[in-house]
Amino acid sequence: MKNILLLGAGRSASSLIAYLLHHAPTENWHVKIGDIVVTHLHTLVDDLPFAEAIVFDVHNDAQRETEVKQADLVISLLPAIYHIEVARECLKQGRHLITASYVTPAFLELHAEAQQKNLTILMESGLDPGIDHMSAMAAIEHIRAKGGKLTSFKSYCGGLVAPESDTNPWNYKFTWNPRNVVLAGQGTAKYIKNGEYKYIPYHKLFTRTEEIYVEGYGQFEGYANRDSLSYREPYNLLDIPTMLRGTLRKAGYCAAWNVFVQLGLTDDSYSLEGSEHMSYRSYLEAFLPPVTNGQTIEQRLANYTGIDADGTIMQKLAWLDLFTEKPVELAGATPAQILEKILKEKWQLSPGDKDMIVMQHLFEYELAGEKHELTSSLVVKGDDEVHTAMAKTVGLPVAILAKLLLQGKITQHGVVIPIHPELYQPVLEELNAYGINFIERETVLA
Amino acid sequence: MKNILLLGAGRSASSLIAYLLHHAPTENWHVKIGDIVVTHLHTLVDDLPFAEAIVFDVHNDAQRETEVKQADLVISLLPAIYHIEVARECLKQGRHLITASYVTPAFLELHAEAQQKNLTILMESGLDPGIDHMSAMAAIEHIRAKGGKLTSFKSYCGGLVAPESDTNPWNYKFTWNPRNVVLAGQGTAKYIKNGEYKYIPYHKLFTRTEEIYVEGYGQFEGYANRDSLSYREPYNLLDIPTMLRGTLRKAGYCAAWNVFVQLGLTDDSYSLEGSEHMSYRSYLEAFLPPVTNGQTIEQRLANYTGIDADGTIMQKLAWLDLFTEKPVELAGATPAQILEKILKEKWQLSPGDKDMIVMQHLFEYELAGEKHELTSSLVVKGDDEVHTAMAKTVGLPVAILAKLLLQGKITQHGVVIPIHPELYQPVLEELNAYGINFIERETVLA
Repeated sequence: MKNILLLGAGRSASSLIAYLLHHAPTENWHVKIGDIVVTHLHTLVDDLPFAEAIVFDVHNDAQRETEVKQADLVISLLPAIYHIEVARECLKQGRHLITASYVTPAFLELHAEAQQKNLTILMESGLDPGIDHMSAMAAIEHIRAKGGKLTSFKSYCGGLVAPESDTNPWNYKFTWNPRNVVLAGQGTAKYIKNGEYKYIPYHKLFTRTEEIYVEGYGQFEGYANRDSLSYREPYNLLDIPTMLRGTLRKAGYCAAWNVFVQLGLTDDSYSLEGSEHMSYRSYLEAFLPPVTNGQTIEQRLANYTGIDADGTIMQKLAWLDLFTEKPVELAGATPAQILEKILKEKWQLSPGDKDMIVMQHLFEYELAGEKHELTSSLVVKGDDEVHTAMAKTVGLPVAILAKLLLQGKITQHGVVIPIHPELYQPVLEELNAYGINFIERETVLA
Repeated sequence: MKNILLLGAGRSASSLIAYLLHHAPTENWHVKIGDIVVTHLHTLVDDLPFAEAIVFDVHNDAQRETEVKQADLVISLLPAIYHIEVARECLKQGRHLITASYVTPAFLELHAEAQQKNLTILMESGLDPGIDHMSAMAAIEHIRAKGGKLTSFKSYCGGLVAPESDTNPWNYKFTWNPRNVVLAGQGTAKYIKNGEYKYIPYHKLFTRTEEIYVEGYGQFEGYANRDSLSYREPYNLLDIPTMLRGTLRKAGYCAAWNVFVQLGLTDDSYSLEGSEHMSYRSYLEAFLPPVTNGQTIEQRLANYTGIDADGTIMQKLAWLDLFTEKPVELAGATPAQILEKILKEKWQLSPGDKDMIVMQHLFEYELAGEKHELTSSLVVKGDDEVHTAMAKTVGLPVAILAKLLLQGKITQHGVVIPIHPELYQPVLEELNAYGINFIERETVLA
């Protein structure tokens, strides 16, 4: 009998929980699920002798110690900031850990000790980061194995709404943390193109998009992530002339989002005076130059941000009720907090709506004097509001890796990400059975 | 005999030192001047029995204690970050202090103790902040005294180059800390206009300028400072509908500077890869979208930043050698550090060049049913490379306040800024004798 402790049972844990409960009898697992609220879990686990749900408070040191001690493997889907405390406890107690979050400098400090103790702290094991690493490494190794030399690697991923639920002019709804969507891209994006480093300041980011086509799903656009370069080393692509990682949206989104960026509405660094008395319209007005003539607020916005006063971007903005006297009703709010509230009213998923994950890798490589282009695309749609595409693509790779780890099939120790064949090959294979598979298109250019 | 300890004997201290040495015999002062390098002071003080120069290291706790103990008044023109340690020592030893720097939260914490001990910590006593407060308060009090009601107050100040030394297409040279010029305006500018708060993100700041005319000196433009509102309370203008403080440049400067901001060249938050191998041209290239057609770098820059490829802004940029292969020769440099280096090569004052301070207050007030506009302008030119306008306008008010303080004419205790008549009236009067005087123009509108 192996004991699994899953910490965090929120929205994105549904597919992971289903997988663990499904495989527990045959794998001889006991599954304990802890979160600050677990009422929604009782119908799932109460009749199962091999599963239980407990109220777990990550700030309770004694409980953390007790529960980690009783587990063979800890899986954490808690908010990323809480992982490090869990990881330190796992190290102390000699337990393995899996998370879907980024390796941070604090985790790197644990690497040597975890190696010494033959423990595996498996990070970046969800969708992005996670499936992106696994699928990219599989393709890269395949190209290398046949003697190809990679010259360009771009990779885009987006959490979007499925076409059948895509009912608004932005072609976007919130399928994950709205705050992260509002703040996305802040800082400077850094990538490399034809051997030259390129830097995009945040206020230009949404103007420097690339068009992406996904067969059967139409036109998308990608904007560069803040850091496209740190994976050159783990991917063993230190000499690659072009590398970019980015975020996908449906075509037309970025030009409209850029209006928010230009105005300063995504700033989360200061509070607006008297935000509790603002309307959507006066919120907008606070970021526009003062009135100097008889123009409407729409005309002034169009002039200031360089958009067409009667175009599709203006339609997107008007559809959000931005020009109305609707009350903001938030005290001491930052511009970003108010924008998030405005968007939440309109971008919420409706009952029955399905989400969709789209990922695309674009490789260019040289082989026997020919230039090859390889496009590898993944589209995953949610089954329903519980088993969303996000929950499947984040939870299933974590779950499969947990199974492999408990089966003793993972020999990597220390802080590990799934870039090794012993990790990604079985995961990608099993994901196929869940309809999570990449479609490849290859073109020989000359 | 009163002992004055002046800390900081850099470029902007020349007029202050001259004033102190001139008045020392009649005022019965002993003047001790401390800085990390004082070799340039020996010709000034070595023959004067009432003056001396000492090597002073602000990081040396023992020396700080000894020297402050021996002084009746400490004046600090050290870099602003060092003031707080000096202030704490003054408080401990029961000594007065004068600086030309902003009151920070750390200083506010000293207010109560300074009051209890009957000590004066006189801050913001130079040009901006300093003369701006004094001249504004004098005008505001004058308007109030005759029954006027202020409806608008805008105040601009700039450290510029005198017309006779204005020899480059930017109409600008570095007359003070170049790093501060490069980083100026970062954050969000906040002001109030007709009762409405307005917020300008940094990437829009240099497009939202106001035209300013100064008689005899032509057209200037002003951009908003980060915080225009915190002086409403000390100025007793809490209900004023319009208030803005800003920075002055010659007309045309801001539109060209905006190109740097749009590209991201003023960012000081990260280092560029391989900056030691960059040329000016490749530095610029790193911020431009990749080449997609046969356009020149000048055309691509013009398209990307929305300027005319053959216009005056492009001429300003080309004059900086930005499009040449001149080497950067800075390792691990931020974008802002490289920009500073490029500008220093071209914006350095030449021998004989004179600097110029321009300040303008624009008041609107209502009196007896009429709308009045009052413009109060100050222009100060440097005498030579030592007695610059900056040194005069920063140093003389500090020096005069020092005299008043030692004469026992300042009754304000605690952390004080020069907004009280007992401070600003005698200072403004004596500044007149040094040619530092405001010219007022008043118009009755209706």
